[in-house]
Amino acid sequence: MKGIVLDRTLPGQIDFREIPENQLQADQVKIRIKAAALNHRDEWCRQGLYPNISDGVILGSDGAGVVEAVGSQVTNWKVGDEVIINPALFWGNDQRVQSRDFQIIGMPSHGTLADFIIVSSDRIFPKPSHLSWEEAASLPLAGLTAYRALVYQGKIQASDRVLITGFGGGVAQFAAQFAIQKGASVYVSSSSSEKIQKAEALGAIKGFNYKEANWVEKALEEMGGFDLIIDGASGDQLNQLIKVARPGGRIVIYGATLGNPKTMEARRIFWNQLKIIGSTMGSDEDFKSMLDFVNQQKIHPLVDQVFPFERAKEAFDRMRAGDQMGKIVLIP
Amino acid sequence: MKGIVLDRTLPGQIDFREIPENQLQADQVKIRIKAAALNHRDEWCRQGLYPNISDGVILGSDGAGVVEAVGSQVTNWKVGDEVIINPALFWGNDQRVQSRDFQIIGMPSHGTLADFIIVSSDRIFPKPSHLSWEEAASLPLAGLTAYRALVYQGKIQASDRVLITGFGGGVAQFAAQFAIQKGASVYVSSSSSEKIQKAEALGAIKGFNYKEANWVEKALEEMGGFDLIIDGASGDQLNQLIKVARPGGRIVIYGATLGNPKTMEARRIFWNQLKIIGSTMGSDEDFKSMLDFVNQQKIHPLVDQVFPFERAKEAFDRMRAGDQMGKIVLIP
Repeated sequence: MKGIVLDRTLPGQIDFREIPENQLQADQVKIRIKAAALNHRDEWCRQGLYPNISDGVILGSDGAGVVEAVGSQVTNWKVGDEVIINPALFWGNDQRVQSRDFQIIGMPSHGTLADFIIVSSDRIFPKPSHLSWEEAASLPLAGLTAYRALVYQGKIQASDRVLITGFGGGVAQFAAQFAIQKGASVYVSSSSSEKIQKAEALGAIKGFNYKEANWVEKALEEMGGFDLIIDGASGDQLNQLIKVARPGGRIVIYGATLGNPKTMEARRIFWNQLKIIGSTMGSDEDFKSMLDFVNQQKIHPLVDQVFPFERAKEAFDRMRAGDQMGKIVLIP
Repeated sequence: MKGIVLDRTLPGQIDFREIPENQLQADQVKIRIKAAALNHRDEWCRQGLYPNISDGVILGSDGAGVVEAVGSQVTNWKVGDEVIINPALFWGNDQRVQSRDFQIIGMPSHGTLADFIIVSSDRIFPKPSHLSWEEAASLPLAGLTAYRALVYQGKIQASDRVLITGFGGGVAQFAAQFAIQKGASVYVSSSSSEKIQKAEALGAIKGFNYKEANWVEKALEEMGGFDLIIDGASGDQLNQLIKVARPGGRIVIYGATLGNPKTMEARRIFWNQLKIIGSTMGSDEDFKSMLDFVNQQKIHPLVDQVFPFERAKEAFDRMRAGDQMGKIVLIP
């Protein structure tokens, strides 16, 4: 089979090449990929920013496709079924936190940026019928992360004023869409007025440009701050989020693209009874709930741009630049 | 009436003196104080560390005594009833967070370090019959803060391994006692082996000396870390607590005696799905639940030392030094 393989001996670090196919096990299914999507994780693998990264592995966590073959013990799927893949492996039974065995498809096991992928049959779910292949491939990792952050950890209520920071990123996009569909009053922050306009078109009430020095004071004055904040950046701006949270509010962090904050305003946290809640990916239960919600509400993921596998480097470079609005999709 | 009044024109900043008595309002009760207890708050008022501090106010948030007179509309209390006082004023109806009007008895309104105090009749509760006056006076502020941190915010379970930091302080003492009575496995940290021994005598499993450089590694190795941590210090050591929390764990902070941390390990928070939860004082509902629990479990607050009002400066200096084990009590 052919896939986009990590090879840090090359200038571009990735290569679309032929690799030997694994044998299909009794409880596994083989999927012909129709579309795959990028996450920051893929670019970070390319940059070697994770521990235990191996050259020769096919990258990619997000994918959708058609069942090509089923293992001898698989009875609930048949050749031709249209499916999407849950990229979270070995979460375990504890809803609160992943097990030590937890992995994500696409490193260290082969990922979705390939013509075929072999996964355990419990990782696949019927493709939502209202979605195109490109949209379906966009959903799994970012949708799961957003859903857990917002619903399981953030306990979103329809009465909440919600701020989604860094709108335009994959998780932020889903968090905004899901929060709007949950009936909450949704605000976003971004440094781009185009992205803010896009959020408003989706149903967000307003966007704040976090490059404006006084956006926190503005938000506090205009609407009194936020009950729930979903953030993937951390860094020093976490203290701005602590300031713009309403008393009793929750700040869910699912990432730290800006690194660690240089301080944390402890007094404001305890006096305002704030919660800072860590979240990453999601359990199998979170994935099923997310998928049900997307089906019920007929939510369409935002697709930024579609590249053929042969142009993978361009797609990865676009992810690295961070200008995308929605998911970057690759197709065979 | 006579009370311990803040007067920062004096070398000791406080003075036991006669001041004019307020008039009893229709919905108020007048209590003859039998015992009062100190909190860090009182010492911080003496040091002028809060905004809006006024000289001439009687200090003290904790007190117990006998009803001396009741206002014309008060029907559920009579002269001679033995009571303790809830020092939290105007919390409001939101269980999650206090209202903007929230105050604590003893600044800006007159406090408990006096022969009499006049309070709204809804602030008093029957004195637990198993407690001495000194024990009863020790309970309110620290007991309420500990109970909310542990139960409402920390959602303690009998299966939890709980760490109470800074054992010996007022809130830490109650947090440890309450957690033990909730059936949890309770550990403490302290820099004093005497205080650790005292905690073990109360039913704690073990104490860690936080001045030992490797106490975090030791705790992780010995028992795999903590599900719930109750901390009043914050400061840089918050990152040690983040490290020693089990995946999925909760860290409740009710104070910041060590100030703000200089960084915060954001990656560990989101990857381990930790919660950092701010808590302060407690609602009226928290107070009632705390009192019911103390009565049911026949919990006895730890009393460090009892001073007569005339020796208030010595008592405040003992609080400032921070060597006490249990509450510092003052009696008329």
